[in-house]
Amino acid sequence: MALVVQKYGGSSVGGAERILRVARRVAETRAAGHDVVVVASAIGDTTDELLDLANRVSRAPGPPRELDMLLSSGERVANALLAIALTDLGLPACSLSGPQAGVFTTGDHGRARIVDVLPTRVRQELDRGQVVLVAGFQGLSKDTDDVTTLGRGGSDTTAVALACALRADVCEIYTDVDGVCSADPRIVPTARLLERVSYAEMLELAANGAKVLMPRSVEYARRHGVALHVRSSFTTDPGTLVAGDPEESTVEKPAVTAIAHDRGAALVTVAGLPGHVAGVLRVLADTEVEVDMPVRGGADLSFTVPRAMAEAAVSALRAHRADLGFTSVTADAGIGKISVVGAGVKAGVAATFCAVLADHGVAIDLLTTSELRISALCREVDLDRAVRALHEAFELGSSDPAVVYAGSGRGW
Amino acid sequence: MALVVQKYGGSSVGGAERILRVARRVAETRAAGHDVVVVASAIGDTTDELLDLANRVSRAPGPPRELDMLLSSGERVANALLAIALTDLGLPACSLSGPQAGVFTTGDHGRARIVDVLPTRVRQELDRGQVVLVAGFQGLSKDTDDVTTLGRGGSDTTAVALACALRADVCEIYTDVDGVCSADPRIVPTARLLERVSYAEMLELAANGAKVLMPRSVEYARRHGVALHVRSSFTTDPGTLVAGDPEESTVEKPAVTAIAHDRGAALVTVAGLPGHVAGVLRVLADTEVEVDMPVRGGADLSFTVPRAMAEAAVSALRAHRADLGFTSVTADAGIGKISVVGAGVKAGVAATFCAVLADHGVAIDLLTTSELRISALCREVDLDRAVRALHEAFELGSSDPAVVYAGSGRGW
Repeated sequence: MALVVQKYGGSSVGGAERILRVARRVAETRAAGHDVVVVASAIGDTTDELLDLANRVSRAPGPPRELDMLLSSGERVANALLAIALTDLGLPACSLSGPQAGVFTTGDHGRARIVDVLPTRVRQELDRGQVVLVAGFQGLSKDTDDVTTLGRGGSDTTAVALACALRADVCEIYTDVDGVCSADPRIVPTARLLERVSYAEMLELAANGAKVLMPRSVEYARRHGVALHVRSSFTTDPGTLVAGDPEESTVEKPAVTAIAHDRGAALVTVAGLPGHVAGVLRVLADTEVEVDMPVRGGADLSFTVPRAMAEAAVSALRAHRADLGFTSVTADAGIGKISVVGAGVKAGVAATFCAVLADHGVAIDLLTTSELRISALCREVDLDRAVRALHEAFELGSSDPAVVYAGSGRGW
Repeated sequence: MALVVQKYGGSSVGGAERILRVARRVAETRAAGHDVVVVASAIGDTTDELLDLANRVSRAPGPPRELDMLLSSGERVANALLAIALTDLGLPACSLSGPQAGVFTTGDHGRARIVDVLPTRVRQELDRGQVVLVAGFQGLSKDTDDVTTLGRGGSDTTAVALACALRADVCEIYTDVDGVCSADPRIVPTARLLERVSYAEMLELAANGAKVLMPRSVEYARRHGVALHVRSSFTTDPGTLVAGDPEESTVEKPAVTAIAHDRGAALVTVAGLPGHVAGVLRVLADTEVEVDMPVRGGADLSFTVPRAMAEAAVSALRAHRADLGFTSVTADAGIGKISVVGAGVKAGVAATFCAVLADHGVAIDLLTTSELRISALCREVDLDRAVRALHEAFELGSSDPAVVYAGSGRGW
């Protein structure tokens, strides 16, 4: 008998039919003799609907504490409904809020970090033979006794943190795709489902456009050694196991594991910058803009920022133009980022990478490399072509493309 | 500077526009220099929508603990949205769940009773100059640390209990009608708004069909001496003050204060009952059916039950027909209950009551009297005519019928 933590995303519990399907899957896991802890997200578009309501009563909804009080209700509803559905199937079930489940966080409303998990109540209910359902994405602020939310990917992090605190045998992340693929199958029809990916490679993929997992939950799992099993909630296929180090997988695997792409970045260029880069980065850090791929070329500094933050970044820099002394700052939102990820990318892959893209007429900019990844910027209109060309050149495809996508857009 | 508790019902916060209106009213109260604690119900039909979801994932939604987890989210959403709207108006605000506000209850999920209110956190937030919003209808079970709901009229009870624990100067119950009237103005256009009603009379009115307040919240207010102020959330009219003893109001008021009517009862008749009434009442108590107006006439026993429970009552009694020994049991849902309430009804009012109804061709059944009330059953089709006749006979009308109704049906 194992202890299994199962996380179901918003689309997996979108509507009564899907809630019943999840309940049946939980029942099957119980029937196989396992203890089950379920972490479900809010139903479908609940969070967006609640935010929409907030926007209708306020020009700038806040304070963050109240937004958390508002948004945290969605997960409670989903988990209570799942408990009701399980009860109907004859399985005793008990839904707990994040605070009740002992998920303690920092007080940073809207983007709290989990600082401790004390799952006393979860264990009690498991010992009573119950399926325990925990509202994801939320916790209790250690400082103020208020409900917090964890921000994007929060339910994954809840599941990983609970799995760790409970010493669960596995943490299954159910989603609307079949697992982690060698590229986005909507762009590359021959993309192959990866049976196993190391934490480090998954982190690189997640940080560079693969949406199936958020970097923070992968990082949490890596740090605590919790194996993540990414599976589809619509099939019984085995999915992808995220575990271990990249070294383990290099022996029999090619240098490149997968191609990632990202349409969510903008390229910012600060021209005629006389002094040090540090001043620019300080301004951006104060504005809470994440900077990636910084490149200093001559008197210019270029870097990428999340596209949604591009305007804020440019405004903040313009406000400091006098003291930083640069000539101009511009943002280009028409770019895409292409990355190859794998344990062996150090060894000569960069040359192939550039040659393949050149052969296919894809102009690139800001090439960067790391232990596990090579990334470059290209025009957004060239992105799909670049993904296909690299996928083919590194022979990542399967001759039997069995991966079927639900097309929610979360897949990659 | 006073401390004011304001309770807003579901229709008062039904939609963004109405939430903004409530926020402005709260802001006006603050501007007048008062501290404000707000208790809001769930938005409009939220509770019904959540129950509908539960019915779609289960044939018999349960357990009650999970239904409470599900339903208690509605009030949190409404109060968080109000806090966001108040913040937008420049008023610092803080919404608290029932458990956070220190509302402790029994563990009877779905119909918990408040056993204690320890509003430490509420006081803290008031001392910080915040408007405090408390989710009504919910509390924390003292036994299990689980969220409970209080059942029908629960938000009123939350407001009264908080007003009592905080020693508030007044508890304002905002609703979609102008206050308590001498009869339902949809039936009697000349019905008069009552400026003041005693707790005892209000209890009789509430228990006999007036929907503006639930008996339990009136009883709680009476026991703790909290003055209730029933007002419309759509006007600034003064409304009705519920306070004091009936004796105080008899001096200058007529014998009858108001006419109540109730379409929610059914008449059950147990024919040919040889033994004691106790056996029948025991069966009904075990089935959790409330019995009213029991009358033993010859070999028959008649009484009323809530119409929704009539079928359950008849089934339960039939199952015990052998041991109780009666001939037959029937339920009649075509009846209505008419009551006159007032501090002076003892003194000869019953005779007038019967004469007026007879004069208007209304046949009555099961006449009962108490210190403050005379009630009788009639056919439901005669009910409106009976209300109008009694209202006129006891001269309860106003020549200036200023009462405007929003027509939600909650009014009376």
